[in-house]
Amino acid sequence: MPIEISDVLLDQLTSSIEQKDNTAILQLLGDEHHADIAEILEDLKLEEATYVIKLLDSELTSEVLMDLDEDLREKVLQNLSAKEIAEELDELDTDDAADMIAELPEDRQKIVIAKIEDSTHQADIKELLAYDENSAGGLMAKELVKVNENWNVLTCVKEMRAQAEFVTRVHSIYVVDDQNRLKGRLSLKDLLVTSTKTHISDIYIPKVDAVNVNDRGEDVAKVMQKYDLEAIPVVDDEHHLLGRITIDDIVDVIREEADRDYQMAAGISQDVEADDSIFRHTKARLPWLFLGIFGGMGSAAIMGSFEDLINEHAVLFFFTPLIAAMAGNVGVQASAIVVQGIANGDLKGTIGQRLFKEFLLALISGLALAGFLFLFTFLWHRDLLTSIAISISLLVVIIVAGINGTFIPLFLSKRGIDPAIATGPFITTSNDIFGIIIYFWIAKEVIGI
Amino acid sequence: MPIEISDVLLDQLTSSIEQKDNTAILQLLGDEHHADIAEILEDLKLEEATYVIKLLDSELTSEVLMDLDEDLREKVLQNLSAKEIAEELDELDTDDAADMIAELPEDRQKIVIAKIEDSTHQADIKELLAYDENSAGGLMAKELVKVNENWNVLTCVKEMRAQAEFVTRVHSIYVVDDQNRLKGRLSLKDLLVTSTKTHISDIYIPKVDAVNVNDRGEDVAKVMQKYDLEAIPVVDDEHHLLGRITIDDIVDVIREEADRDYQMAAGISQDVEADDSIFRHTKARLPWLFLGIFGGMGSAAIMGSFEDLINEHAVLFFFTPLIAAMAGNVGVQASAIVVQGIANGDLKGTIGQRLFKEFLLALISGLALAGFLFLFTFLWHRDLLTSIAISISLLVVIIVAGINGTFIPLFLSKRGIDPAIATGPFITTSNDIFGIIIYFWIAKEVIGI
Repeated sequence: MPIEISDVLLDQLTSSIEQKDNTAILQLLGDEHHADIAEILEDLKLEEATYVIKLLDSELTSEVLMDLDEDLREKVLQNLSAKEIAEELDELDTDDAADMIAELPEDRQKIVIAKIEDSTHQADIKELLAYDENSAGGLMAKELVKVNENWNVLTCVKEMRAQAEFVTRVHSIYVVDDQNRLKGRLSLKDLLVTSTKTHISDIYIPKVDAVNVNDRGEDVAKVMQKYDLEAIPVVDDEHHLLGRITIDDIVDVIREEADRDYQMAAGISQDVEADDSIFRHTKARLPWLFLGIFGGMGSAAIMGSFEDLINEHAVLFFFTPLIAAMAGNVGVQASAIVVQGIANGDLKGTIGQRLFKEFLLALISGLALAGFLFLFTFLWHRDLLTSIAISISLLVVIIVAGINGTFIPLFLSKRGIDPAIATGPFITTSNDIFGIIIYFWIAKEVIGI
Repeated sequence: MPIEISDVLLDQLTSSIEQKDNTAILQLLGDEHHADIAEILEDLKLEEATYVIKLLDSELTSEVLMDLDEDLREKVLQNLSAKEIAEELDELDTDDAADMIAELPEDRQKIVIAKIEDSTHQADIKELLAYDENSAGGLMAKELVKVNENWNVLTCVKEMRAQAEFVTRVHSIYVVDDQNRLKGRLSLKDLLVTSTKTHISDIYIPKVDAVNVNDRGEDVAKVMQKYDLEAIPVVDDEHHLLGRITIDDIVDVIREEADRDYQMAAGISQDVEADDSIFRHTKARLPWLFLGIFGGMGSAAIMGSFEDLINEHAVLFFFTPLIAAMAGNVGVQASAIVVQGIANGDLKGTIGQRLFKEFLLALISGLALAGFLFLFTFLWHRDLLTSIAISISLLVVIIVAGINGTFIPLFLSKRGIDPAIATGPFITTSNDIFGIIIYFWIAKEVIGI
């Protein structure tokens, strides 16, 4: 179970660091899981955290560094020499090492890479750095267990033992030909019950899922989820085996994707965390708020053009926030369903069918809501015409907003644009304006001015 | 790679089903992955899908059934006899079997359970059904590999072979004492390099993460993500080993949680999918829309009480949608950051510190936006006092909305209520009303009527 970071522990730790009592520090932290140590370090001052990182042995600290919050890691790495960083990288799997290097300033990246002692590790990391970070290549690790189809079981077992030393978790044994092309996979069971002289080509399973090195991370996540895979090999266009992706990295992809969609829906661009700087937050939030301001100015201008209604029908103006809010709500509901359906791949039928379904949905909700609003306005103002005008407008606005909310993400997605951008302030603002235009136009028609 | 379901394939399949050409059907589907077959069945008519399910052998169809969309699975199960369902359950792991049974009507559950032939499997499933579906107990499977600390390596290997037959993927070998209490885990490597007479108690690793059977699924997900685990054992209060949870189930938990939060933010209660019925969609959406209507009526009433302003200061009324929209946007932004911070466990500092940070953030954004709005209104109407009134109001509204958006989810979370409920229509509606009250109150003060 995760440990509770107590104040007592933190106090002991900070005073041990102050006194440079290394034995005490190692006693306090030496047995903890790297994820817990990372959490503890996040509660320390930067110099204290750096001191601990330098003290613990690099097999442990390399993992601790990977678990640190990105901002803190960046600062700690600034306090380490290129050689020290290279030592940490030597301990990490290639995918983690490449991720960590990618966060360094570019000029430093080269210096650090040059200091990596193991030349294979160095070459692997260089290769990984060349891939787009959101592609299968950017997610994969070079560590895997592979055997040649022409080997016999005995050679295979010997080779596997040697390879397994560098692979934390052996999920699958991949079978390749002499050109390193992926041919299939091997079941550990078959390997153990077969005579040592049997050729691998006689016992391997030729069916193996693989992804292309250029596939997008989200698509890899979909494949691995669909087939419940814990690891998947990555190949190039000629089916050469390049690496493998494990499920823990995919869990991160899923979480990040969900976080991004959620923030997009809330009108927050860029990836921000609660503890980021005020500047970063402002940069992520302010553009959407300006969009809202422009929308509001548009609404004000529209209302201004109907100013002649204000003396006799002031009540119309009282209901503009309601109309705008309902248009926004319905639009967001409709678009969220579509965006989620696209993301999960369970959206069926044609665009026309989806729009018709949304039309029916909006019609039902709209009738209920408009009926209710009619009663309220009529009982309040006893003005039949105005009440009819307001409620019919609401009905139409709800239908238009629903259809907008359905159509826009579908349209964006067809055009290759992330439909999630259509949720949140974008859909709200455009529906606000549409809503108010429709509202006053219908009201004017009904009241007959 | 996932197959593309072509129209040709579907046409061939439906005509083969029509002609009851079983050989052709098996040829078309027999080699496909169960997840692909499930996708294909979703494109068929119910009777056709049922026909295929009954035709394929039950080792394959049990997996296909689990991969089907919940609604379709329910219908297919209605077309199968209790005995047929029990046969499918016999093929499934206990966790999947329990999930499938849980979807049946209660009276049918008992009949089906009684027909399960393997009595251990039957007892295991019954046990799992007793746990809350959102708890570790509801997520775990009974299938695992465990050895007794008092065995020697030889016995252990023999037992493991027998157990492994029922376990699809062996992630870890758990070590228990005579009372079935979890003592640790065993590394496969150590097992293979040790003399066969060595006692397990001498070589097992006593450190093993475990979760309690009553822990919530979300907490299990957090632990497994934090420690990058692919499986975790589940124990009761006395540390008896009850089962294990694997990462693929946790991936589902993470995805469902993210979907739920997203829908909540969009004002959709209950779990709905794009293809659910209109009735289900209406039930999920209409309540939030009524909340919006009430909010709008509140706004209208507030504006009505300031009706005396309308002749001289009509422009004030034109800006209410802007004020309401900005209050809503800022509130949602602030609450989304808090809700996400709580979900990811990276929210630090006291409530006071968070509120102060949000105050600063809202102040900065507010000053920029209010300044901009002042220019716009002044250039439009050339009325200094009104322009000042509108922009000061906007500033105050933004600050109040930001603090509201930060405080409400923190408060709900402290009270043990899911803070995600505070995003979406709830925060928007309350901020709309607050915003309009503040706006007219300040405007009145500034203009001095």
